[in-house]
Amino acid sequence: MKHTTRALIIGRWQPFHNGHYEIIKKISQEVDELIIGIGSSQRSHSLKDPFTAGERMMMISKSLENLNIRYYTIPISDIDFNAIWVSCVEALTPPFNQVYTGNSLVRELFTEKGYVVKKPELYNRAEYSGTKIREKMLNNENWEHLVPKSVVDVINEIDGVGRIKRLNEKDY
Amino acid sequence: MKHTTRALIIGRWQPFHNGHYEIIKKISQEVDELIIGIGSSQRSHSLKDPFTAGERMMMISKSLENLNIRYYTIPISDIDFNAIWVSCVEALTPPFNQVYTGNSLVRELFTEKGYVVKKPELYNRAEYSGTKIREKMLNNENWEHLVPKSVVDVINEIDGVGRIKRLNEKDY
Amino acid sequence: MKHTTRALIIGRWQPFHNGHYEIIKKISQEVDELIIGIGSSQRSHSLKDPFTAGERMMMISKSLENLNIRYYTIPISDIDFNAIWVSCVEALTPPFNQVYTGNSLVRELFTEKGYVVKKPELYNRAEYSGTKIREKMLNNENWEHLVPKSVVDVINEIDGVGRIKRLNEKDY
Amino acid sequence: MKHTTRALIIGRWQPFHNGHYEIIKKISQEVDELIIGIGSSQRSHSLKDPFTAGERMMMISKSLENLNIRYYTIPISDIDFNAIWVSCVEALTPPFNQVYTGNSLVRELFTEKGYVVKKPELYNRAEYSGTKIREKMLNNENWEHLVPKSVVDVINEIDGVGRIKRLNEKDY
Amino acid sequence: MKHTTRALIIGRWQPFHNGHYEIIKKISQEVDELIIGIGSSQRSHSLKDPFTAGERMMMISKSLENLNIRYYTIPISDIDFNAIWVSCVEALTPPFNQVYTGNSLVRELFTEKGYVVKKPELYNRAEYSGTKIREKMLNNENWEHLVPKSVVDVINEIDGVGRIKRLNEKDY
Amino acid sequence: MKHTTRALIIGRWQPFHNGHYEIIKKISQEVDELIIGIGSSQRSHSLKDPFTAGERMMMISKSLENLNIRYYTIPISDIDFNAIWVSCVEALTPPFNQVYTGNSLVRELFTEKGYVVKKPELYNRAEYSGTKIREKMLNNENWEHLVPKSVVDVINEIDGVGRIKRLNEKDY
Repeated sequence: MKHTTRALIIGRWQPFHNGHYEIIKKISQEVDELIIGIGSSQRSHSLKDPFTAGERMMMISKSLENLNIRYYTIPISDIDFNAIWVSCVEALTPPFNQVYTGNSLVRELFTEKGYVVKKPELYNRAEYSGTKIREKMLNNENWEHLVPKSVVDVINEIDGVGRIKRLNEKDY
Repeated sequence: MKHTTRALIIGRWQPFHNGHYEIIKKISQEVDELIIGIGSSQRSHSLKDPFTAGERMMMISKSLENLNIRYYTIPISDIDFNAIWVSCVEALTPPFNQVYTGNSLVRELFTEKGYVVKKPELYNRAEYSGTKIREKMLNNENWEHLVPKSVVDVINEIDGVGRIKRLNEKDY
Repeated sequence: MKHTTRALIIGRWQPFHNGHYEIIKKISQEVDELIIGIGSSQRSHSLKDPFTAGERMMMISKSLENLNIRYYTIPISDIDFNAIWVSCVEALTPPFNQVYTGNSLVRELFTEKGYVVKKPELYNRAEYSGTKIREKMLNNENWEHLVPKSVVDVINEIDGVGRIKRLNEKDY
Repeated sequence: MKHTTRALIIGRWQPFHNGHYEIIKKISQEVDELIIGIGSSQRSHSLKDPFTAGERMMMISKSLENLNIRYYTIPISDIDFNAIWVSCVEALTPPFNQVYTGNSLVRELFTEKGYVVKKPELYNRAEYSGTKIREKMLNNENWEHLVPKSVVDVINEIDGVGRIKRLNEKDY
Repeated sequence: MKHTTRALIIGRWQPFHNGHYEIIKKISQEVDELIIGIGSSQRSHSLKDPFTAGERMMMISKSLENLNIRYYTIPISDIDFNAIWVSCVEALTPPFNQVYTGNSLVRELFTEKGYVVKKPELYNRAEYSGTKIREKMLNNENWEHLVPKSVVDVINEIDGVGRIKRLNEKDY
Repeated sequence: MKHTTRALIIGRWQPFHNGHYEIIKKISQEVDELIIGIGSSQRSHSLKDPFTAGERMMMISKSLENLNIRYYTIPISDIDFNAIWVSCVEALTPPFNQVYTGNSLVRELFTEKGYVVKKPELYNRAEYSGTKIREKMLNNENWEHLVPKSVVDVINEIDGVGRIKRLNEKDY
C-alpha cells in the first residue's frame, strides 16, 4: 500500500499567474495531493495585495480545473507571531509531508519544525511576476498573456484593474 | 450564456456524516458550484468539537471524491461579532448567490444582508446526527455505518475515538 | 471657575427603555457631561443582545434629543481581560470623574482604579427591564409603552421584533 | 415625510483643525445628521498620531458645540482586513447613505459596497494640515491659530505639545 | 554530561495553595528546572478567577522562595484554539521535556504533540482545593491555613477577600 | 518595616548581552526586586528579532544565575494600542514602583500614568549593542565576547547564528 504524498505550497497569488501555474503543474507530477495556502489572506484592496482571499481562491480553482491534481485551497492569514505560524497552518490543513517555498522565513519556520522544504522551480521569473503584472495593470500595458485565461475572466468580472487604478489615485 | 449558481453551506461537520453527504448530493444537483464552510474552524479537541478544521476538510474532500460537484472548502472561525460575520465569510469565499442552512442565527444574518436562504432537506435526522455519533464513539457503540467510508479512515488514522475518550476522562 | 463634572454610565441598552431614560435624566441634573458607554458593543443578533451598537446608539440619541444634557455615546466591546478593561474605556473616552453602575464587576474594576462609583437610582425596575421587554416582544405582548417613542420607531424601522422572533426559531 | 440624510465622514483628526471644522460646517448644510468616525482610534502617543480617541472626541465635541448639526462621534480602529472594514463601520454606526472622504482606499471600499462617496471640499489645505500642525508643535512655532479655540484648550489641558516633544526625543 | 530535565506544569493557581506547594516540592526533587505556567492569565476579578496573573505570580514566587528549585513563571492566556495552544506555550517558554497535569484536555494536547505527560501527585485534595478556598473566603470561614504564609500576605495586601465579596454582590 | 522597592525594566534582549547584564547588575544594587519584561515577545525569526520569548527568557535566567537579585521575567507582547499598554503590563506583573527605560515612548507612557521613570546607565554602548551583535553573527565576526557565557551556550544550542544567516538568504 502506497503512502499518500501531500505537499504544501503557500503563496500570495496576487494574482495567480502562468509562473504559478507551471510550478503547480510540475509539483502535481511529484505528489498525490497538494495544499495551496493563500497567504496574507486577510489582505486586499492595496497596490501590493489587491485581491481578496475569495477572489484569489476563484482564480486558482478555475485555472487548475483541467489539471489532474487533487488539491485543497486554504486561506492563511498573517499572524505576526512567527513561532506559532506553522502550528496555525497545521491546524487548518490536512497533514502534509513536504513544503514548497522560495521564501526564506517560511523555509526556516518549517525546517525548524522538521519538515522537508523544497524550492519550487520557477518559470520565466523575468516575465511571470506578480509585482510586474500589477504594474502593467496600473500602466495600461498588456498583462493578460501572463496569467491563465480564467484569471483574466475573474479579474474582469470584479473590475480588478479598475480597483488597482482607483487605489493608486492620490489622496485628496 | 448561463450564469453560474454558486451556493454556500456552513456546518461544523463534527464529524462529516451520511446525512451531510446526502444533503450535499442533493444540493449538487441544484447548483453549479458549492462552497462548504467549515464552521467553528478554530475549535477542536473538545467533546462537542473533537476534530480540527484540517481533519474535517480531509473528511469532506475524501467523501465527495466521486460526487460530480465542483466545491470549495473554507475554514470559517467564530468571531463573536455577529454583525460582521457575513462580511468575513464573503471576504474569504468566491461570491455566492444562495445559502443553505438550518441554523436560525445564520439564516437571519444572511437574510438581513439580502441573501436567499434555503433550508437543506435533512436525511434521517434521528440517526444521522453529529451529537449522537460522538456519543456512540464515547460509549463503544457502532458508529461507522453512519459516516462515509473515508471518514472512518480519517478518524481511525488520527485515533479520533481515542481522542474523544481521553478528553472525557475526569480531571484529576 | 467651575470644574466640569463628567460622569460615565455603561449599559447594554438592549433596548434603551424608560428606566434608562429616567436614570439619565436624573444624572443629567447632577453632572455637566455624561459619557454613555454601549457595553458588549460587538454583540447583536442574539436573544439576549438583539441590537447592534449602531442601532442602540440611534435609540439613545433620538431618545435624549430633548434632554438638556451634553453627552457622548461610545461603543465598548467585551475584552475578556478584566484587569485592563478600565484602561480600554479610558483610552476611548474623554476623562471622567464619576461612574454610575449597578453591576458588581464594573463597580469593583473602577473602584480599584480609584474612581468614585455611584449606584444609579432605578425606576420601576419591575416593569422597566430589558429582559422583560425582550420577552414581551417574543410573546406578542405590548412593549411599546416601556420604551421612549423614538425607540419604538427605531425598532420598527429595523424590524427588531421580527428579528428576535426569527432568532428564536428552532434550529432545523 | 422627508427621509433623513445621514452622512459618514472618517478622519484621524490628529488634531482636529480649522480645515476639518470648515468641511463639517459645509456638510452640515447638506445633510440632516453626520457620523464622525475617529479613524485609527487605537493609535496614540506617536508623532503621527499623538492623541487618544478620547482626546480627539473631546476636541471635536467642544469645537462643534455651536454648530447646528446633529452628529455622532464613533471610534473606528484599524483592523488590517480591508474587505470587512466597511462592515465593521456599519455595525458600530447608525445607518448612513453618504460617505465623505478624500482617501482613495476608503473611497474604493465604500464604493464597492454601493455607497455614494463624495470628496469633501478642502479649505486652505496649505495651512490646515495635521502634519504641518504637528511639525509646528515640535518646532515651537505658532499653531494655535490653525485649530478651533477649544482644541487649544484640550491640547493644553493634556500637555499635548509636551507629549509630542518628549516622544520625539532620541532613544537612549 | 548530564542533560537538563525541564518540566512544565500549568495551573490557574486561584489562589496558590498548600496542595500546589506540595506538588511543586515533589516535582522539584525529580527535575532540574520547572516552568510554572499561569493559565487563564488574562482572567481576574471573577468569583472563579479572582486574582490577576501578576498577583498569582507574586504568590508563587514568594511561596517558593526557600525551595531549592530553579523555576520560571510564565503567563499563559486562553486562546480558544486548542490545536495551536501547545505551540503558543512552546513559543513563550524555554524548551521542556515533561509535562505535569491533571487536566484531560491539556494532557491530550501535549500527548498528541509527543510529550511525556505525568499526573502530579495530589495532596489532601479534600482540603487543598482552589474552589473550596474561594468559598471559605466568601463565607467568612478560615482559609489562611490552607495556603502558604506568603500567599496570605499577598491576598491581604490587595484585599483579595474583599474583592471576592464585592464581586459576589447582587447586581442592582 | 521597610517597603519593598520593585522596579520594571523592559527590553527586547535580542540577544541578552553584556551591556544588559551590567545594567541589571547595577539596578540590582538599588532595588529589592526586578521585573524583567521581554518586549515584543511575540516576535522571533526575523533579522531584527531572531529569538523567541522562551529563548530570551532562558538567556536571561542563565546569565543572572549568580547575581544576587530576586527577579521575574515576563513576556510582554506588542499590542499596537499605546494608551492601554501600561495597563497590560500592570495586569501581568507584580506591582512595581519604578521603571527603567531608555525608550522615549515607554518613558512617556509610564510617566503619564504617574510612574517614576529612570534612564538606565548604559555600558560601552559602542560595543554592547544588539544590532551590532546580530550584524557580527551575519558577517562571521566574533560576537561571543559581547554576551554572557551562558548566552553563547543558548544560541549555540538552538543554532541561532545559522537561523539568522538562513533568514538573511534572498527569497527565490
